[in-house]
Amino acid sequence: MSLIQEKTDQAIQILKDQNIDLWLTFVRETSGVRDPVLNFLIGDNDLTWPSALILTKNGDKIAIVGNLETEAVDRLNVYSEIIGYDTAVSGVLRETITRLAPRQIAVNISQNNVHADGLTYTMYKFLVEYLAGTPYTDRITSAESVINAMRGRKTKAELARIQKAVEITDEIYKKTFAFIKVGMTEIEIADYMQNLMKEYGVGYAWSPENNPAINSGPDKVVGHNGPTQIKVEPGHLIHFDFGVKYEGYCSDIQRIAYVLRDGETEPPVEVQRGFITVRTAIEKSREAMKAGATGNSIDTIAREIVVDSGYPEYKYALGHQLGRVAHDGGALLGPLWEKYGDSPNQKLEVGQVYTVEPGLAVPNYGYVGLEEDVVLTDEGAIYIGDPQREIKLIND
Amino acid sequence: MSLIQEKTDQAIQILKDQNIDLWLTFVRETSGVRDPVLNFLIGDNDLTWPSALILTKNGDKIAIVGNLETEAVDRLNVYSEIIGYDTAVSGVLRETITRLAPRQIAVNISQNNVHADGLTYTMYKFLVEYLAGTPYTDRITSAESVINAMRGRKTKAELARIQKAVEITDEIYKKTFAFIKVGMTEIEIADYMQNLMKEYGVGYAWSPENNPAINSGPDKVVGHNGPTQIKVEPGHLIHFDFGVKYEGYCSDIQRIAYVLRDGETEPPVEVQRGFITVRTAIEKSREAMKAGATGNSIDTIAREIVVDSGYPEYKYALGHQLGRVAHDGGALLGPLWEKYGDSPNQKLEVGQVYTVEPGLAVPNYGYVGLEEDVVLTDEGAIYIGDPQREIKLIND
Repeated sequence: MSLIQEKTDQAIQILKDQNIDLWLTFVRETSGVRDPVLNFLIGDNDLTWPSALILTKNGDKIAIVGNLETEAVDRLNVYSEIIGYDTAVSGVLRETITRLAPRQIAVNISQNNVHADGLTYTMYKFLVEYLAGTPYTDRITSAESVINAMRGRKTKAELARIQKAVEITDEIYKKTFAFIKVGMTEIEIADYMQNLMKEYGVGYAWSPENNPAINSGPDKVVGHNGPTQIKVEPGHLIHFDFGVKYEGYCSDIQRIAYVLRDGETEPPVEVQRGFITVRTAIEKSREAMKAGATGNSIDTIAREIVVDSGYPEYKYALGHQLGRVAHDGGALLGPLWEKYGDSPNQKLEVGQVYTVEPGLAVPNYGYVGLEEDVVLTDEGAIYIGDPQREIKLIND
Repeated sequence: MSLIQEKTDQAIQILKDQNIDLWLTFVRETSGVRDPVLNFLIGDNDLTWPSALILTKNGDKIAIVGNLETEAVDRLNVYSEIIGYDTAVSGVLRETITRLAPRQIAVNISQNNVHADGLTYTMYKFLVEYLAGTPYTDRITSAESVINAMRGRKTKAELARIQKAVEITDEIYKKTFAFIKVGMTEIEIADYMQNLMKEYGVGYAWSPENNPAINSGPDKVVGHNGPTQIKVEPGHLIHFDFGVKYEGYCSDIQRIAYVLRDGETEPPVEVQRGFITVRTAIEKSREAMKAGATGNSIDTIAREIVVDSGYPEYKYALGHQLGRVAHDGGALLGPLWEKYGDSPNQKLEVGQVYTVEPGLAVPNYGYVGLEEDVVLTDEGAIYIGDPQREIKLIND
């Protein structure tokens, strides 16, 4: 069974569970604007003309596409009905919806999850126009809950890919720590890591400009910005944020190393204290993760540990879901800030994969940010790969 | 000057020409849903949190982004003002718009050009919500005309990249014609071409599943579907549709070859007649292309030549623009069919790059589709690369 077959079957089960009659993904020229759910519905393919992919609670899988693309869609072995057209999608779409007579038409609009928000303003307007005069315009609703469930609940095949991505990320980190020498620039180290990615045949979990992000020492502005000409020096904390994509699925892992100064055999106490704080925040929040908890309640645990230890509050969420993209949407381990919408109020579910990534600055040394990937099981959250339990020391 | 600097300067000139005060690109988590204009505004980078990129007629270039991304945006050397925020974009966006007091806020919504239609339904709703109580909600309009002009009018740097993409495509075709032998499958030939792409270090102009599309003989369903196990046989017309991406810019070229049968020294007369018809349709429509003509008027010329020669009408547009994607939007050389919206009514402009690609089936032999890439200059449309002037013959 292909991944698309697996995920569309799962989606139909979710429609049954949620008692939603019909889920419509309505797109055009997906090489231009690509609805992120298409990866689950047609894989890497693109659709050129206005196209409708319809899944129903009753198990229908219907594709309405331009005639030149029916053959390509047929080869997916997913859609039980493929309707081609030459000049206009409106009539055949209206007829198909009318025939199915759904009580709800869930479409890809979402305040809280960008990955459930692929319908453009204009395509929404077209849909309403094409259904004008039918009862169905009033039955349009958000597919957020369907897409959240489908993206979140990883199948075995999906989880295996994420595990492999994490494994490769870990190997690249190990080789990189052995490679680093005093005097190297952040850019040299990043080049080394990116070359290893090519050797492993993996893609980027996010844009290559800041993947890996590397921050060496106290003078670097930490954030989503890439490596610079700053050189590794004794007394630097080096912080990495790095993720790869293996067969369409991502890892996202932060690590730190400390460059020993002459005479030092371990990092200064401030650095160690920063590390222990972050490590504890990760471990305590991971332990609390279970199905039914809100993401916000988990975020609060880690955030309080960092703040109660006297560090400033980090200005981002504790963790996000991981899947086809590094920042997969839906439930978020986050604070209740406007920019996160309702996603921190959503509940954790078994099968979801999260990052856990608190951080803090250690004045004069650099940034301590660790990021672990975990999967939620019936027995709680389990690390994917080994977490960083000690500060990596660079001697040279 | 970087390509982003060049294109944002061009956009400001277009805002002046069109007398539009402000163009707003409003996005979030662009690794999930990516507005296609971002390539011109921030290159390959992604933005994580709700972000606003504002260009004005007065020359302002303003970026409102999450604080963790101000540094990355600053490095582009494009934005004169970069405003960071931690928790909520709404206040700072409202303040900035109010300060600029635009008469129009052009946003990325478009019926006719998917590449000007990156604003999702939900982000549109957020924008209206954030501007509620100001006069600006009523001033929201479509940026289609701005984006069409900017995407269409290729700068020198953009044109050079397209020329290079066409050159490489042409070289790969030449090597492929020398490689083909009777008995090879479409898939074997496609693998050979895709391996050459790797050697040349180029990307795919569209999805690898059907790039190249290869159709050997009369039994293959032509369309956006990939190569199959069908084998090349004497008497087959082999049709190719293939495009590469060089430094972000695409080629898109169709070619045909004929496999000679025992005793044949040239293709059968039906095949030759099909070729000459398509070749003539291309040449006559290219000759008619000039700034100010509608795309529909050009489409009609080629379409009539094919239909008047007794072939069925091809069910697609004569040609589309070419740029960062193979099917770039805006003015289209197309018929007035619903699926093409108003784009065939738009006028051709100097600097635009088009494909010209009529096609027809030759019963018992296969498909004749040729596709040439042309650039519109003050002296009319000029071929980029050499057009196919003869049927390529395969002897073996």
